[in-house]
Parts: sequence; structure tokens; C-alpha cells
Amino acid sequence: MKTDIEIAQEATLEPIEEITNELGLTKDDWEPYGHTKAKLSNGLMDKLRDRPDGKVILVTSINPTPAGEGKSTVTVGLGQALAKLGKKALIALREPSLGPVMGLKGGAAGGGYAQVLPMEDINLHFTGDLHAITTANNALAAMIDNHIHRGNKLQIDPRRVEWKRVMDMNDRALRQIVVGLGGPSRGVPREDGFNITVASEIMAILCLATSLKNLKERIANIVIGYTYNEEPVTVKDLEIEGALTLLLKDAFKPNLVQTTENTPAIIHGGPFANIAHGCNSIMATKTAAKLGDYAVTEAGFGADLGAEKFLNIKSRAGNINTSAVVIVATVRALKMHGGIDRDNLKEENVQALKAGMENLKKHMETIDSFGLPFVVAINKFPTDTDAEIDFIKSWCESRDADVALTDVYANGGLGGIDLAKKVIAIAEASVEKFQYVYGTDERLETKIRKVAQNVYGANDIELSAQAKKQLAFYEQQGWGNLPVCMAKTQYSLSDDPALIGRPENFTVTIRELRPSIGAGFIVVLTGNMMTMPGLPEKPAALNMDVDKDGKIKGLF
Amino acid sequence: MKTDIEIAQEATLEPIEEITNELGLTKDDWEPYGHTKAKLSNGLMDKLRDRPDGKVILVTSINPTPAGEGKSTVTVGLGQALAKLGKKALIALREPSLGPVMGLKGGAAGGGYAQVLPMEDINLHFTGDLHAITTANNALAAMIDNHIHRGNKLQIDPRRVEWKRVMDMNDRALRQIVVGLGGPSRGVPREDGFNITVASEIMAILCLATSLKNLKERIANIVIGYTYNEEPVTVKDLEIEGALTLLLKDAFKPNLVQTTENTPAIIHGGPFANIAHGCNSIMATKTAAKLGDYAVTEAGFGADLGAEKFLNIKSRAGNINTSAVVIVATVRALKMHGGIDRDNLKEENVQALKAGMENLKKHMETIDSFGLPFVVAINKFPTDTDAEIDFIKSWCESRDADVALTDVYANGGLGGIDLAKKVIAIAEASVEKFQYVYGTDERLETKIRKVAQNVYGANDIELSAQAKKQLAFYEQQGWGNLPVCMAKTQYSLSDDPALIGRPENFTVTIRELRPSIGAGFIVVLTGNMMTMPGLPEKPAALNMDVDKDGKIKGLF
Repeated sequence: MKTDIEIAQEATLEPIEEITNELGLTKDDWEPYGHTKAKLSNGLMDKLRDRPDGKVILVTSINPTPAGEGKSTVTVGLGQALAKLGKKALIALREPSLGPVMGLKGGAAGGGYAQVLPMEDINLHFTGDLHAITTANNALAAMIDNHIHRGNKLQIDPRRVEWKRVMDMNDRALRQIVVGLGGPSRGVPREDGFNITVASEIMAILCLATSLKNLKERIANIVIGYTYNEEPVTVKDLEIEGALTLLLKDAFKPNLVQTTENTPAIIHGGPFANIAHGCNSIMATKTAAKLGDYAVTEAGFGADLGAEKFLNIKSRAGNINTSAVVIVATVRALKMHGGIDRDNLKEENVQALKAGMENLKKHMETIDSFGLPFVVAINKFPTDTDAEIDFIKSWCESRDADVALTDVYANGGLGGIDLAKKVIAIAEASVEKFQYVYGTDERLETKIRKVAQNVYGANDIELSAQAKKQLAFYEQQGWGNLPVCMAKTQYSLSDDPALIGRPENFTVTIRELRPSIGAGFIVVLTGNMMTMPGLPEKPAALNMDVDKDGKIKGLF
Repeated sequence: MKTDIEIAQEATLEPIEEITNELGLTKDDWEPYGHTKAKLSNGLMDKLRDRPDGKVILVTSINPTPAGEGKSTVTVGLGQALAKLGKKALIALREPSLGPVMGLKGGAAGGGYAQVLPMEDINLHFTGDLHAITTANNALAAMIDNHIHRGNKLQIDPRRVEWKRVMDMNDRALRQIVVGLGGPSRGVPREDGFNITVASEIMAILCLATSLKNLKERIANIVIGYTYNEEPVTVKDLEIEGALTLLLKDAFKPNLVQTTENTPAIIHGGPFANIAHGCNSIMATKTAAKLGDYAVTEAGFGADLGAEKFLNIKSRAGNINTSAVVIVATVRALKMHGGIDRDNLKEENVQALKAGMENLKKHMETIDSFGLPFVVAINKFPTDTDAEIDFIKSWCESRDADVALTDVYANGGLGGIDLAKKVIAIAEASVEKFQYVYGTDERLETKIRKVAQNVYGANDIELSAQAKKQLAFYEQQGWGNLPVCMAKTQYSLSDDPALIGRPENFTVTIRELRPSIGAGFIVVLTGNMMTMPGLPEKPAALNMDVDKDGKIKGLF
């Protein structure tokens, strides 16, 4: 089979005005960025406000393994399949970060015949959203240090500045640094560090804001650190919410592109899925729902993290009603959850598969507990055997669960027809019985416990001394009514990455909390979360090139 | 009079396809970025290669003072005036850096009725060129630290890494930092610092490259530091010139916009005018010359820095033939050069003006020594008196120098008609007698001496011990045939910023040299050059805002 970049370069893209015309957009609703990308205007959502929403389909997965699940690929393929069945379908995805593109994995925009295009642009600077977020984040950091340097009227404690600078790069050497060295003309020395841009609270805010006005309000609420008296200091105190919002005015507009089969796709925002909520923007998903019969969207990592946060954080903030969920699994990944090494995945092993199904089963129970109907999507790999596929199918059917084999990587939308039909069936039959895992008026500790017990299957939580102190402080600050954003390993349902399958009888340790008041959630850390990746021994960049005519290679 | 942003927001912009149509461009020649910005394709220059160049007009000035000269405004106004006289005129300018926009001065895109538009976009993220340069610069930095972290096969000396990270921000606290702290998983500790993006060698390279291929060659040649044996280490050694060029593939395309009078303007690149050459890109100027009868362009600071480098560095690299030069001066600035304080500039003072003319006179001699014809442009301010204007006019006329009063800030192109007529007269009469100040085959020390003596009027140069050692080392490395890029204060013809007017009997001290082998010049430092600005007490950002409908304020 051809490589992703070959397929991408051979695809026939429609001019973006064809896509906007098909969506019924007028010239005022969008701006071109090149011939095949567009930004949707701020006014568009206002114009569409009274239009009924299409059905939102959330694509999630089992706990990820090194074998890969292909969640983005299934999301794109499902959108294409729905279009083939005559539905007006739009796809809403996150936009990739350049750091990992240059580092480990190359591009991130679906795969095979289920890609969003132009993949070269989407994987590089795209329409500049991440650069604008970097700039706004770092303008704030510069203003904080300048404030301290120039007399520190707000009495910001340099040891308690929590706001980090960011870079859209995998740059290990910036994890822990000292700034402000070299004497009085070079600022006030303090310990500091950079995060990768997608870990910026501004990224989370951009993705959760419902209007430009709401964006500015959220930015004003960011807590950047504490005074010597340990009082929170906000962006509002520094009086620069206007400037930071100005820097984000274009980044806030959702980006419209198309798939390999010319299905419209809105690609916008991409926050971390551990210390943030891991979903594309509310603006992206809501615009997709307003413009289509179906909006197919995804959330980061497995259902324990991505779907939980999509439903408890994003949907709550954006008033999004989900009609159905797709849980993606692969034979390979399920066998890994059944205890098989990465090296032995090619061999048929129904026994291991059976053991691994326990992981899927827990996620099915979780989606069911939200009151949402779902389809299990088996994302086909060439090494899957008939016996393995049949096993999963009959396992699901014996539990009255919808299941569909999908082959969108190799066949595009045609490979997702069965999945699309089943999604339509449950989405159109769907009766509204959705329920959150917790109410916002519950205590923070209760919210954390409910997620740990109901979504992860833990016996209980255990709070560190620091976490206990922080919980009390946060409730006292009036932050107790916010949702919780769990930062947990994606590899296990528990907080121990080694526990694959469906762990039981475990306790989740809550190490530390962090307030993301602008984003509107309290981050709950269950372990060390890496917020600045490093480069591998042989970075992907070593294989990248562009020739004299601008033709690219090595982006995968 | 209205403010710049009011004038900008009231101007009627033509759709960018109108501008491209008038220039005879086809759909393949450009890509839209919004409705009023475009990027010109890589193929366009190839297509135009055999077309004769239009006349290139360089706009320069006397040594800048706090009173302001308005060089960009005159450049824009002259382009507009040439268009009014029926010439097909294009303007080529640098693109602004966000750092100073957020910090001190607000926007930088001409002023009054001689602005390039949309000024809001041009002054913020524009088409993302500076962000792409930041990213390429910092990808290189991350690869260097990753190389050292992973065994350091090239034996790079961490104490001799000369490549700095950059940020498009005024951020004093990043001037001097320590990176790589926190143990083995966080890189190798070393002293480091950030420059502002426009000080990146990659910015200089982008502006001097003549094709995508040449861009990659120049990037490969960057010297990032030295081994423990003090041998230079290049990007080629790290094998990532392909990836870095890929990151710049769109940034390398010149940007097309328009002025308040819909005159086409190419805005592309903006390197520092001290440690780099301070001009818009070769691609911008050459494309403007290919597409127009007249290409009006500018260079940073006064003629001693900007014009000297435009002619000795940029024109040499790009094979650009300049037909005529405009030297901008204001009554106010000339009075400052005559010894008057900033507070007393409103009062008529022909005596001070007369003394200040000596500064202008030296720059006239310099342009003359290059063999180029020139017009002196008096950029009118409301406080200028008739006696002062008349004095300058008769002073110039008595020396057979063309002089024109311009009022483009208040009147747009109409205010520059006299200047445009005089420019046309000398440009069309111009006989080719251009000569460089030095040949590339001369020794580095000779080149520096010739610039100091012939352009600055110095008696001689004095080399520090370090500079002597470096000169010998550079010649030995085979870098002796490169042009020199002088980093000198812009405020004086000498290397002492306090010496206004026309200093005499001075020696220029050469403190240190730095190799910019990718850019293709040796930087010659005559003092401490600030490559990361700081924010003022009250940053411009404090006044910036955007309302719920996206309307901007405070950008000036």
C-alpha cells in the first residue's frame, strides 16, 4: 500500500470555496488561507445560533497501547462513510503540535485513505493557531517578569510564579531553567521552565471558550501565581486580557479543510489530554454540528480520559449533546491488553484477545453509565485473522453491543459503511438519558472519587498531604464548583501504567492539584505528567526534506 | 488629524485578487491569506526571470533621532505618488516584529495616509513568517541540545554553543539563562540566552536567499558553535538542513498587500539592522522590480548602516541594480543633529538646522561615493516653518542636490508628487557607474577599515585583542571572502551614540566579530548590541483590546 504522504499528494483536493459552497456558506462566513484551507468567521456561529444541531458522534477508544488504535483515522473514515450514505457529515479534530511531528511520529491527521488534507500544512504551521497561542502565552510571561522587574506593585512572589513559558517543540533542555541572570538589566532571577504549547492553559481556554467575549473573560481569570501573602494573582490584575485576546483573534476562528474524499473537516485546537481536556475546540464541534446532519469528533487517549473529559468538561461548557459514541479497538491492542508482547502480535491468539476484552468491557460500561448508546469499531489491521475478528464480533453480540469491522485506512469511507449504518441507527433512535458522572456543586474530593470509582473502577482515592491542603485552599478561594480535569496515565485504567487490561482492587493516589481557573477546571495529578517532551535519538526531522520546487518528503 | 488606526480602518481595501490581476498574475502565482493578503508562489520568480527589472529606488535617511524621520512612510508615499504619475510602482518593505509592537511603539507599517494595510494583521501575526523563523531557529537549538544529551558524537563543546533560541517578544528575563537543569532526563546544563526572532541568523538567511535551493544551502552552512577542539560545527553536520528548510517553505514566499491608496506592496522579512543587514528580502525587492516599472524599497536606520548594507551585502547577493536613492530628513531631526533638545524642537531655529545639515551632508557624500544619484526628501511636520524649509531647499540647491518637500503622511501619494517627479528624472537619466565600498576578495580588516573611513568618516579603526584573534581565525577557516556586516550604533556616524551631527577625528573600535556563515557575512561589533529588547514600564499591550465583534483598539 502507498504511504500516507503519497496518498495525500495524489489526492484531488477541491478548492476550499467548493467546500464552503456545499456547506451553504457565504463570502462573509470564511476567509481563505491558501487554496484549500479556510478560517470560519467569528460571526458565523451567531448567524447559525438558531439552527438545530446535527447529531454529535464521539469517537473514543480502549486504553492506548504501542500497537495503535487509529482513533483519528476511524473518525475521518466514519465521516466519509456517513457522507457516502447521503448524510451531510462534518468531522471535528484536534490540530497537531509541531513538537511531536519533528520528534517522534511525523504527522497526525488520520492515515491512509482516511486523512485530512493538506496534510503537509496541517502538520506544519497550518493557519498559525499554535503560534498565536505560543505568543499569547509568552507575552503573558514577559509581562509577569516585567512587572516584577519594575517594582512589583502586585507583590508577586518570584518563587510562586506558576505561569510557564511555552514552545511548540520537543525541547528537553528547557524543562528546568533559571531565568533573569546577569544583573539588574536582565530581570529578576528565578527558577522557571518551558512547557510544550499544547500544555498551555491558553490552549485549553481557546478550546473551551464559546465566544470572543467568553475567551477574554476566561483569559482574565487565569491565575498566574501568588503574592508573598499567597493570594492568587490573575491576568486581570495585570490588565492585559485585552492584548492577549487580541493576539488570539484569528486563532479563535475554526479552520475548515477536507478529507481525502472531500468531506469537510474542522480542525481546531489541540490541548493535552492529561493536564488538560484533550479535545478539539467547542467552536469546532459546535460549528460542525450546526453545519451538518452529523458531526463526528474525537477525544484524546482512551474513554477513561478523553470521553470522560469530553462529556464532563467540554460538553458541559459548550452545551453539546452527544447522540452516540464509537469505541475504537484493534485486535492487536486488545491482545496487548491480554498480556502479549509487541513482538508477538502478528500471531493469532484468541485466548489473549479474550483476556484483553476486559479492557474494552470497562469502557463499554462507562459509556453506558453516561446513558449513551455506542458501537464498537474494530479498526482492521492486515495481520488480524478471521478467528480473531469473529471472536470480537460474537463477544459483542452476546452482550447486545453493536460492533462493526472498519477498514477505512485501506478503503476510505467505503471501509466504514457498516459502522456508519450502525451509528445512524443508534443515533436516530437515541432517547435523551444522558447523565454526568458528577455535579459541579459537589465537593472537589467527591468529584475526583466519583471519576476514580465509576470511570476507572478504583476502590477509592488516596490524597497526599499536599493534595489535601490544596483542596481546602481551592474550596476557600471559591474554586470548588469547577469540574475536575484528571491527569492520569493513558496506558491503564488505573494510575499505574503497567496495569493493562482491567485492573481491580486498586486505589488512585492524588498527588497534587493545579488550578486552571481560566480554562475552568481543577487539574488533578495522579503522577508525574510530562509537559515538555524530549526528542528521540533519531528525530523524525532527520528524514525531512523539501526540494527546489517545494515538494516535501519525510513528513511521515 | 485622524489616528493611523482610524485611517486604516476607514480605508477601502481592494480584494487581493484585484491587486494580483492588475499585476498580471495568474491563479498559480499566488495564494490568498484572508481576503486582502497573499503569498507569491515559489514558481513566480522563475517565470519572471527573463523579464527586465524595473528601476529600484532605495529610501534611506540621516542618522535617526528620537524626533523621527518617517522613512517607511516616505517609502509608501513615494510608491503611491509614482502610481499617481502613471508608473507601475510596487513597494517592498520589512515585516514588523511582534516584540516591539507589544512593547514600545505599537505598529510599524508606515503612517497616516501612507500606510500598508491591513495594518492590524501586518502588525500582529501577518502570514506567520516570523513564527516559522522562530520555529526553525528553535528546532535547530533543540536538535543541538538533543545531540549533546545523546552522547555528543560530534563532540560539541556545551560552553561553545553559539546558537541561541529566539522568541518574537521583548523578554528581558530570557537574555541570560541556564538550561538543562534538573538531572539526566533534562538535558545537559549550560549557559544560554534568547534573542528576539528578528536577530536570528535564519531571518538574515531568509532575506538573502535567492531560491529555495539557495535557502537550504545557506542553512546548511550555519555555524552553530565549536567542538572541544574548536572546530566549527554546522547544520550540515547535524543533517537537518532539509527539515529546517521545510519549516520555512511558506515563510520564504513573499507577501503581497496594498497601501491606503491600493498600491501593491510586498512585505517580507525583517532582520535587525545592526547584527544583520536590516533590509526586506531579496525575493521581495526582486519580485517588486520584476512586476513593476518602479520598486521602492527601504533599509533600516541611516544611510551609514542601512544603505551601506543594502548596497554592499544585499544587492551583491541578489544582483540588484539600484537606480536612485532617496535620503529622508526632517526639520526636527536635523535640528537635533544641530544640538537642540527634544523639548525645544517646535521653535524655529535656522541656526541649529544649519549645524545639523552636516549630518545630511555626510550621507549625501556617501551615496555619491557609491556612484548613485539621489534626492533629499524633507518629510514635513506641522511644526516646520517656511524659513526652515526654505533654508534646506536653498542649502541643497546651492550644492546642486535635488530636494523635495513631501507631505505623504497627511496627503498620501499627492503629498509625494514633487519627490516622485525628481526620482523619475534622475532614475531615467541614471548612467551605470555604481561601485562597492570594498571588494569581497579584500581582507576582512581592509573591508572594515574602508567602511569606517569612507562611510562613517573615521580616521581609522582599532581592533581589540579578541577581534584580531578572530580575524586571523576566520581567514584561516576560509571565511575571509565574505562581506562585513557592521553592528554600530544607529544614532551617530561614529561608534559613540552621543556624537550627533558629523563627528570628525574619531576612531572606530572593533570589539568582537561573529560569523554568520549561513547568511554569508561576518558581523563586526563596535559595541554592545542588544539582541533581546525589554518591555517598558507601561507596555503598549496595556492599551490593546478587541471587542466581542473582533474590532481592535490600541494597536497604535
